[in-house]
Amino acid sequence: MAPKITRFVPTADQLVYTFGGNPPILSMNPGEVLDLFTEDALGGKVRTADDIPSEKAPLPYVNPQTGPFHVNGAEPGDTLAIHLIDIRPARDWGVSTISPLFGALVGTKQTANLQAPLPERVWIYDVDADAKEVLFKALDSDFTTRLPLDPFLGTIGVAPPPFEVRSALVPDTFGGNMDSHEVRAGTTIYLGVNVPGALFSIGDGHFAMGDGEICGVAVEGATNTLLTVDLIKNSECPWPRLENNSEIMVAGSARPLEDAMRIAHTQLVYWVMESGLSLTDSYQLVSQASTTRIGNVVDPNYTVVAKIPKRHLPQHNWMDGVHRKLREISTVVARS
Amino acid sequence: MAPKITRFVPTADQLVYTFGGNPPILSMNPGEVLDLFTEDALGGKVRTADDIPSEKAPLPYVNPQTGPFHVNGAEPGDTLAIHLIDIRPARDWGVSTISPLFGALVGTKQTANLQAPLPERVWIYDVDADAKEVLFKALDSDFTTRLPLDPFLGTIGVAPPPFEVRSALVPDTFGGNMDSHEVRAGTTIYLGVNVPGALFSIGDGHFAMGDGEICGVAVEGATNTLLTVDLIKNSECPWPRLENNSEIMVAGSARPLEDAMRIAHTQLVYWVMESGLSLTDSYQLVSQASTTRIGNVVDPNYTVVAKIPKRHLPQHNWMDGVHRKLREISTVVARS
Amino acid sequence: MAPKITRFVPTADQLVYTFGGNPPILSMNPGEVLDLFTEDALGGKVRTADDIPSEKAPLPYVNPQTGPFHVNGAEPGDTLAIHLIDIRPARDWGVSTISPLFGALVGTKQTANLQAPLPERVWIYDVDADAKEVLFKALDSDFTTRLPLDPFLGTIGVAPPPFEVRSALVPDTFGGNMDSHEVRAGTTIYLGVNVPGALFSIGDGHFAMGDGEICGVAVEGATNTLLTVDLIKNSECPWPRLENNSEIMVAGSARPLEDAMRIAHTQLVYWVMESGLSLTDSYQLVSQASTTRIGNVVDPNYTVVAKIPKRHLPQHNWMDGVHRKLREISTVVARS
Amino acid sequence: MAPKITRFVPTADQLVYTFGGNPPILSMNPGEVLDLFTEDALGGKVRTADDIPSEKAPLPYVNPQTGPFHVNGAEPGDTLAIHLIDIRPARDWGVSTISPLFGALVGTKQTANLQAPLPERVWIYDVDADAKEVLFKALDSDFTTRLPLDPFLGTIGVAPPPFEVRSALVPDTFGGNMDSHEVRAGTTIYLGVNVPGALFSIGDGHFAMGDGEICGVAVEGATNTLLTVDLIKNSECPWPRLENNSEIMVAGSARPLEDAMRIAHTQLVYWVMESGLSLTDSYQLVSQASTTRIGNVVDPNYTVVAKIPKRHLPQHNWMDGVHRKLREISTVVARS
Repeated sequence: MAPKITRFVPTADQLVYTFGGNPPILSMNPGEVLDLFTEDALGGKVRTADDIPSEKAPLPYVNPQTGPFHVNGAEPGDTLAIHLIDIRPARDWGVSTISPLFGALVGTKQTANLQAPLPERVWIYDVDADAKEVLFKALDSDFTTRLPLDPFLGTIGVAPPPFEVRSALVPDTFGGNMDSHEVRAGTTIYLGVNVPGALFSIGDGHFAMGDGEICGVAVEGATNTLLTVDLIKNSECPWPRLENNSEIMVAGSARPLEDAMRIAHTQLVYWVMESGLSLTDSYQLVSQASTTRIGNVVDPNYTVVAKIPKRHLPQHNWMDGVHRKLREISTVVARS
Repeated sequence: MAPKITRFVPTADQLVYTFGGNPPILSMNPGEVLDLFTEDALGGKVRTADDIPSEKAPLPYVNPQTGPFHVNGAEPGDTLAIHLIDIRPARDWGVSTISPLFGALVGTKQTANLQAPLPERVWIYDVDADAKEVLFKALDSDFTTRLPLDPFLGTIGVAPPPFEVRSALVPDTFGGNMDSHEVRAGTTIYLGVNVPGALFSIGDGHFAMGDGEICGVAVEGATNTLLTVDLIKNSECPWPRLENNSEIMVAGSARPLEDAMRIAHTQLVYWVMESGLSLTDSYQLVSQASTTRIGNVVDPNYTVVAKIPKRHLPQHNWMDGVHRKLREISTVVARS
Repeated sequence: MAPKITRFVPTADQLVYTFGGNPPILSMNPGEVLDLFTEDALGGKVRTADDIPSEKAPLPYVNPQTGPFHVNGAEPGDTLAIHLIDIRPARDWGVSTISPLFGALVGTKQTANLQAPLPERVWIYDVDADAKEVLFKALDSDFTTRLPLDPFLGTIGVAPPPFEVRSALVPDTFGGNMDSHEVRAGTTIYLGVNVPGALFSIGDGHFAMGDGEICGVAVEGATNTLLTVDLIKNSECPWPRLENNSEIMVAGSARPLEDAMRIAHTQLVYWVMESGLSLTDSYQLVSQASTTRIGNVVDPNYTVVAKIPKRHLPQHNWMDGVHRKLREISTVVARS
Repeated sequence: MAPKITRFVPTADQLVYTFGGNPPILSMNPGEVLDLFTEDALGGKVRTADDIPSEKAPLPYVNPQTGPFHVNGAEPGDTLAIHLIDIRPARDWGVSTISPLFGALVGTKQTANLQAPLPERVWIYDVDADAKEVLFKALDSDFTTRLPLDPFLGTIGVAPPPFEVRSALVPDTFGGNMDSHEVRAGTTIYLGVNVPGALFSIGDGHFAMGDGEICGVAVEGATNTLLTVDLIKNSECPWPRLENNSEIMVAGSARPLEDAMRIAHTQLVYWVMESGLSLTDSYQLVSQASTTRIGNVVDPNYTVVAKIPKRHLPQHNWMDGVHRKLREISTVVARS
């Protein structure tokens, strides 16, 4: 039976800029499907090389979120599973920028320095959805090159622990602005629930991005995103877990970057132990068989994702088989 | 003329656990004086070596704040000046603990490791206010020693930028849980105003603490704190500035610790430039004449305070002379 | 014409444990080929799960190097190019360990803590060269799994700047213990020459390793390695560059890990600029089109490699075409 | 009885630039006194604001060392104690600079960025030994100010572990370029011996310096330094310990800065335990009673010194009473 599918396109004043702190925009049951429009990180307001990002999209009006969504039945102590069915560009262009005091290769608010900043600049990328490519055009020469279109969500998260309201620029235990390529179609993201209803939201679509989002801004773009959710009752998930058909993964977010590594890998060691390996065997196996992908080195916390192929692990029904179950809904939706 | 003095002792359900997110508990005018009770970081609930802190004061019920206070006339873009007139122990005991996953010398949520944690333990310190000492009593031997009583506030802060609500455990641009010895009687703290009324609060009194708050918990204690405030209109203050009779100081909060250093010292260089020195002269002079005190290396951001004696700087009316003005109110109050 | 091929198998007392500080063991001309035996990181002395690594291979007798080799004509200010033609296991087993105070997920000499250390343990891996697999066998259960055989050199480096002699455990500007998967057959490694003859050496063969060498020890094994070299006269190379048929790459080594990122990516931006792009265009393109692979997060410096496909860059004769030239020698050797 | 005093002034070609790697320039017995000239960090070659440091004192010719000295009887596994009796300016001027790619508030080799560097500049300070002051003169205005003369040695160290030779710019377990104010007259520095004779050296005199040596260069000056030494046989000292009449201290050197903190404080906890306290009591007491002073945040490793007053600790004969013994020699020398 085909699941219920709800299309939602937020109006400009429905966009939110935090995790937590906002009432739900919609309620849904586990197993239902949302078909969502997400605005780009700059609110869709930077459209030419002459637009000045810091004027068009000043803080705190960046990374607008679509949501939050209330998942019926979600309670603190549960784990929410969000399965991304499809992520597509909603426009035929994307945008990137460099900005003073932002990015990994310049001084920032935290890594402060006394040097003169780089200038603020804007690149507009054409999106060729059929060819699955985006077009880079140099500003200071006539060089162009086509990069693979690789759509994923920079932000996905639930409300943080009680009392807190966090900027949509921040990644942490609740997910958030992880800027990880792994938050893509085909992946299930597991997030610990902190408040009744979980109150998750998504945004910050990326059409292409190098590892680390080095200059602080990916090829940003609006998306249409199809997703479904499930709940694992009474199951803690201290840091975001991810699963696709072949791998299990953990996202750690912290500074310095080695702490993000430590979080992701200790959590992966603990997760692998759920399959029956001892602590030291799990530590050894993760050390030899896992790979790491850096999400960002520019946000208030840096994010890395550690992952290991399931085929190298003992047979195990990871996360109660929720990913497999959500894949089936995904297949039905794709057919319908 | 003696200023208006308002005594306020929060009830248990008036305590708040965030910066931002709460309505003001009181309004005040610049130049008025508050006489405040602050509860200890563990809510006054850990009173013997047999109390288990993680049960008596579970997250998020730590670092309760007295406030927030609405300062009439404060608008975003202004700077709030809070002058601490007096900080006194409100009880004849203080408390410290060590806890699993917290502290600089053990694995934590961020600096995660696979080793077995240390046990949870509690030390109660007797306070001898007359002798100005606190008494350390070893748990595993009969050794005791008297440490200097050195009262200061671990937390002082305003509401963060719009939309955000931050845990009272966090230090950042808005002040917060800096755990700096410099937040003591005689010091003026300058904080950029983010929301109308500024909405400042204080708490987390410390009776003694080594630099860095190494085990994560100082000798925590309830205080009676006397303070007054002023406003500098249309004056930005990107990071907390501090001033006493002899020094100007900046607090930087970030991870890794060198980024906290970079923030504090670049901001101090810029502040010194207000006296007329060039960038490179200010950089050179700060490099030779400033000292640094580490607030904490255990909170979500680490804090360092960079400071330089005014006597080594060009004559300048620092922060429009607000510290001097508030010192006068302080003197009147002390006499009254 | 087939190049001269010299086979060299060091005796135990010919092994060296530093970069710099040792006289050359052999001299060679650019274009000649070396066929080298490299001992494993533990000196081939840990062969069963009962061997105690810290006793069998105590510091400083780890990471034994084959070399150093004197390249005729190499002078400070030149760049040495080493092309790896082939790396094969020299034994049918490899070894890994966990050791107290070493590894990313435990306290170490630098990230010191007060917790009890993990125990010291040894895993022996069978190598199936035909199937291109290594066999992990759990110590505490009967689980086994086969991981891909993926041979690369943990260490490759030249003598450091004048006066210094560095442990073979350290990666830095001179190469060294980078523990990067990219130091594999088919890759050319470019290293700035610091002393006459360059004095390069190799060692620390790895048969498999997760990104970051998380527990501090890969699946270590002895190798037979075939390589050739060339010189680029009067050409500085401040950090190791790498090139294969499809990508150019830079290795940065530092702590914290974000500094290794910063080094690798600024150097990659500068290298890409050699193809004619402006600074900001190069920064933007690298930000969207580069990927990053973490070498290690356990050595005295952490290593990351940033890489970008040549097909996304302007046409350019990278490093004077040395990689292409050495590939041709490689092809001749493979045929002979 | 007055100890033997040996005056030694190195010629230019006797200066060395590393720890390790050089034959001893003199041998001495424990209890003898050396009266040493140390050249400034720039080799005495930058004497006016027009001198260009990177040309006058290019790498690796910085931080010239006086030494190394062979201590008769010192063997690996022993601890060398060096007591500094007196440190005096040997010239009536000192010098500081700012240089591109060096310093805490600019991009560096490791914390690389793409911004334009600051200019290279030189400040000459007059030294008034009688008034115990140095004179800062602004370059871009006519402001001057007098800072306290506060002489200490930026570098003091022994040869590193076997095989290694380390640049005199580096601080590590062997001491080296710690740039700590605590390496001053009246202090005993304890260093673990790595090679027969210990082979210690000193240099890099500072006449004044802010905490952290923020711009990378203190007020550098040549010194005449009086010291004596002793040995503690069969006693390991994994990181530099320091002792004066009132405090015990440990220096930790690492990146990021919090790791230097962790080293210094874990080692201080362990050292305090030698007086009989349990691990957790020592951790608690160090957390409340220690202070921290930052040596440098600019060298290849950052240095912090953690210290605690002896009066707050159990009675104990710290380091076998060597400091007290060397103080007596010091007193005799001062009288003679």
